Amino acid sequence: MSKFTININGKIFTEENAVISVLDRGFLYGDSVYEATRTFFKTPFRINEHLDRLFESAQKIYFEPIITKEEILAEIKKTVENSPFENQALRIVLSRGVNMDLGLDPDLAIKENLIIYSKELKPNPKWWLEKGVDLVFYQKLTSSKGSLAKTGDYVENMLAFRSAKEAGAYDAIMINNDGHITESTTSNIWIIKEGLIKTPPLSDGVLAGLTRQKLIEIGKNMQLKIEETSLKTSDFYSADECFITSTTRLIVPVTKINQKPIGNGKIGQITLNLLKTYQESIEKDLGQKIF
Amino acid sequence: MSKFTININGKIFTEENAVISVLDRGFLYGDSVYEATRTFFKTPFRINEHLDRLFESAQKIYFEPIITKEEILAEIKKTVENSPFENQALRIVLSRGVNMDLGLDPDLAIKENLIIYSKELKPNPKWWLEKGVDLVFYQKLTSSKGSLAKTGDYVENMLAFRSAKEAGAYDAIMINNDGHITESTTSNIWIIKEGLIKTPPLSDGVLAGLTRQKLIEIGKNMQLKIEETSLKTSDFYSADECFITSTTRLIVPVTKINQKPIGNGKIGQITLNLLKTYQESIEKDLGQKIF
Repeated sequence: MSKFTININGKIFTEENAVISVLDRGFLYGDSVYEATRTFFKTPFRINEHLDRLFESAQKIYFEPIITKEEILAEIKKTVENSPFENQALRIVLSRGVNMDLGLDPDLAIKENLIIYSKELKPNPKWWLEKGVDLVFYQKLTSSKGSLAKTGDYVENMLAFRSAKEAGAYDAIMINNDGHITESTTSNIWIIKEGLIKTPPLSDGVLAGLTRQKLIEIGKNMQLKIEETSLKTSDFYSADECFITSTTRLIVPVTKINQKPIGNGKIGQITLNLLKTYQESIEKDLGQKIF
Repeated sequence: MSKFTININGKIFTEENAVISVLDRGFLYGDSVYEATRTFFKTPFRINEHLDRLFESAQKIYFEPIITKEEILAEIKKTVENSPFENQALRIVLSRGVNMDLGLDPDLAIKENLIIYSKELKPNPKWWLEKGVDLVFYQKLTSSKGSLAKTGDYVENMLAFRSAKEAGAYDAIMINNDGHITESTTSNIWIIKEGLIKTPPLSDGVLAGLTRQKLIEIGKNMQLKIEETSLKTSDFYSADECFITSTTRLIVPVTKINQKPIGNGKIGQITLNLLKTYQESIEKDLGQKIF
């Protein structure tokens, strides 16, 4: 059985024959936008919000797709149905299209290309909720102001991930040129200190994570104090708890950074409460247990 | 007749059938390195230096190609021979290869992919040397420290180019978060003030242009004073002359920035002297006139 189910402009392929022109601007310049989400039992998760953000990313790079959200949604559903797996990781890529010539000018692109990748999503490893994961800090070479568009430019995040792997860690937390913490390579980052929950503001060069946004709402409903504020490495060393958030993995507790334990080195209670409340809210929406 | 001659891992294609896997990391993450050069009468220009820099870029992103420079050179020659054009623009892309799974981990890549694009290169338009070109300033969203690797991450440069096009200008000059001028979207930038030639240092986030390097040598041989120094927008408004350099276009005079004339608004004499000397040095190497 093939690992991937891949939809290219409405046609379904396996990974062996899913190809695109080498003149596609996604390949030439990273000139594409994307979203990553998952399914729970073949239902795409928070898909409308992901499609909204996909189009916001496109707008940030002055890319006006001809295809509509409704058409993309239909293709996502088709892709999900064509996959044999109940729980799927989904990647939705909209590239600006094939270039008629070499050159950065975006007007050289012919109609955009839509690629939807689906593959089986295994459950989060059990040890994440037993021991928590460990991260390392990564000083970025490039720094950004403001909320990022999700484009095909991921070399810096790849370098950050690689440095974590070299250090034997799960992932990296990236630091911008101002010395402010931004995010992890594919997730947002949070700390808790004396009951106050903190996450970096978008203006430090952070992607507006959908789980991040949801958790700010949930936390407020739980009467927790949440602050979007610039963070430095020292804030992490003095924190009581730490966790990361992503659509695919929900909330993952972090217990160690650069080999040093966060708080007492154990998974924090507020982190677990947030995860429980978030998980229940998803289950309520879906009408069934997710794990 | 097809416009492009494209070599993918040793096989020659036209643009209609030159394709790559949608799981190639170049397409997924911009995780590729590249060089752009040209031919003069089917001779690839400064090709060994370009291949050296290609491998330096790869090293900067911890990408160790299996293919050798000699093997790539042989494929470049094959591509050039397969093209009907005497003067060709060449783009040499080495992607980290097809990913076995979704994920930033570079170890997920199978063997790299080599793509060589060739298309006809038309002579520089005559008006460039009659009137000079006009540029606009572009404040970067992302800023980099140090000399850049030439990777597939070109969204910011695309945005800069687009802003220039919107303003009716030829290209943009990018400004980093420190307010320092870096480079144009595909070329290096220079100004001349009272006989002193200045270009930004690599440490401001500048690509180590081969023409830039060559011109520093040539200038020294001509007893000109050349300085690599941080520049601000005000330095351009008070400059006597301005020009950009690239392998493909050599030296292009700039006479206007953000609608304001540089110096007296005419192409500068030192700029023309540099172009003449550079052109002669190329012709000496090739043993024939190039224009």
